[in-house]
Amino acid sequence: MSKIKLSAISTTAPKKIDKEKIKAATQEILQELDELQNLLYAQHKHCILLVIQGMDASGKDGVIKNVTGTLNPQGVMVHSFKAPTAEEADHDFLWRVHQHAPAKGMIQVFNRSHYEDILIQRVHKWIDDKMARKRMEAINDFEKLLTVHNNTKVLKFYLHVSQEAQQQRLIERTEDHRKMWKYNESDFEEAKLWDQYMDAYEDAFKYCNDIPWMIVPADHNWYKEYIVALTLRDTLKSLNMKYPRLKK
Amino acid sequence: MSKIKLSAISTTAPKKIDKEKIKAATQEILQELDELQNLLYAQHKHCILLVIQGMDASGKDGVIKNVTGTLNPQGVMVHSFKAPTAEEADHDFLWRVHQHAPAKGMIQVFNRSHYEDILIQRVHKWIDDKMARKRMEAINDFEKLLTVHNNTKVLKFYLHVSQEAQQQRLIERTEDHRKMWKYNESDFEEAKLWDQYMDAYEDAFKYCNDIPWMIVPADHNWYKEYIVALTLRDTLKSLNMKYPRLKK
Repeated sequence: MSKIKLSAISTTAPKKIDKEKIKAATQEILQELDELQNLLYAQHKHCILLVIQGMDASGKDGVIKNVTGTLNPQGVMVHSFKAPTAEEADHDFLWRVHQHAPAKGMIQVFNRSHYEDILIQRVHKWIDDKMARKRMEAINDFEKLLTVHNNTKVLKFYLHVSQEAQQQRLIERTEDHRKMWKYNESDFEEAKLWDQYMDAYEDAFKYCNDIPWMIVPADHNWYKEYIVALTLRDTLKSLNMKYPRLKK
Repeated sequence: MSKIKLSAISTTAPKKIDKEKIKAATQEILQELDELQNLLYAQHKHCILLVIQGMDASGKDGVIKNVTGTLNPQGVMVHSFKAPTAEEADHDFLWRVHQHAPAKGMIQVFNRSHYEDILIQRVHKWIDDKMARKRMEAINDFEKLLTVHNNTKVLKFYLHVSQEAQQQRLIERTEDHRKMWKYNESDFEEAKLWDQYMDAYEDAFKYCNDIPWMIVPADHNWYKEYIVALTLRDTLKSLNMKYPRLKK
C-alpha cells in the first residue's frame, strides 16, 4: 500500500448530503445498535474493539458519547489512554493495552490507543524510526492475536479534522466555561506539530493496515457520528449472531 | 529445524559427573546470582522470564524453590498457571499471560506457562492442529514482543523426566504425607497420555524455537537445578550490567 496524503482527503461531509436526514438516519442506527449489542452480549462469542484516534479536538469524546452512549453500559467499556504510569513504562508498550482488550460479548472503546506509541512518541522523537517500525510490527501481531484468538472485530477510526477546525475548537476551550476542563496549556504548542503528526499518522495507515483504517471526515460532528455508528452497525450485522437456545 | 525425539534424549545426569562437586558448584552459582540479581534490579533496564515446563512430577516446584529461593523476593515473582478462570477464558489465551510479563529489573518465573495452551489443550483435543499452529505463531510473536520491546531475556526450560521416574514420584505422592497435597486424582490418568504429551512437546520445540528451548535432564534434582542456575547465571552475566551512577 502506498502512503496516503491526509491533506488530499476532505475533512468535511460530502456537500450533497442533507444534515437533517443524516441525523435522523443516525438515530435509527442507534436503535438497531441497541438490539445488536444485546445479541453480541447474549451470544458471548464475538467482541468489538473500537479504536478512536485523532488530533486534539478532533471530537473523540463526542463520538464515544453520541455513538455508544445509548448502549447498555454493562456491555460497553471505554478506556482512555493517558501518559503511561511508572509501572506501565516498566513493561512493553502493549502490556497496558492488552489488559483492556475486550472480553467475549463486549464492546471495548479505546479513546486513543496503542497507536499513540507510534504517534506522539515519534513526533517528539522519544523513539527513533527504527523502533517505530518495530512497534508497528508488534501492533500488527497484536491486532492479529485479538482477531484470530478471541473473535475480535477491530475497527480503527481516524477522526480527520482540518487544522482550521482544530484551532477553532481549541480557542473555544479557552472561552467556553463548559469546555475549559479540556484545555491543557500544551495544546497550542502541540498543535504546531501538525505536519509531523500528519506524517506519523500516514505511516501508521501505511504500515498498520492489516486491519484497515477508516478515515472519517470530522469537521462536522453529525457526519462523523453517522459514519462511526454505521460502521459499527454493519460490522455487528455481518457477524450473523443468534441468541443461544436452551441446552437440552 | 527438524523435530527432535525426546525419547532419544537422556533424562539423567551424565555418568562421569560427580554429584557432590555439582552440588557445591550450584551453591557457588547461587551466591553469584544474589549479586547479579541486585544489579538487575538496580540497573532497571533488563528483565528475565524463566519459563518452567515439564510433565507432572518433573520437578518444576523444586527447581523454583532451589534456584530462585535464595534470591531477594522483592526482585522475583512466580506465577503458577492453573486452568483458566471464566474471565481469562473470555480473552485470547495470551491475555492472562501478558499480565504477568516481567517489569524491568525483575525475574519472573512461570510455573507452567502459555505453552500449556498448545500442550494439555492439544492432547485433550480441545483445540485442533490448525488452531495449535496459529497459537504457536502467536506465541512466537508474543515472545518477540517481550524481547524487543522490554529487554526481556526469555529462558525456556523443559524438565525432561523419564516415564519411570514420573511414575515413581506420583506413587510417592500417594504414600508420603508431606507430598499428598500435590496428588490430584487425575494424575495417573493424565500420565497415560505420555506419548501424546511428548508429541505435543516436540512440536512446541520445533515451531516455537525463535527463542530456543533448553531440554534439561530431570531425573536427578541436583543436576537439573545446576543446569537451570547455571543458565540463569550465564544469562545475567551476558547482560554486562552496571550499577547506575549518581546523576549530576
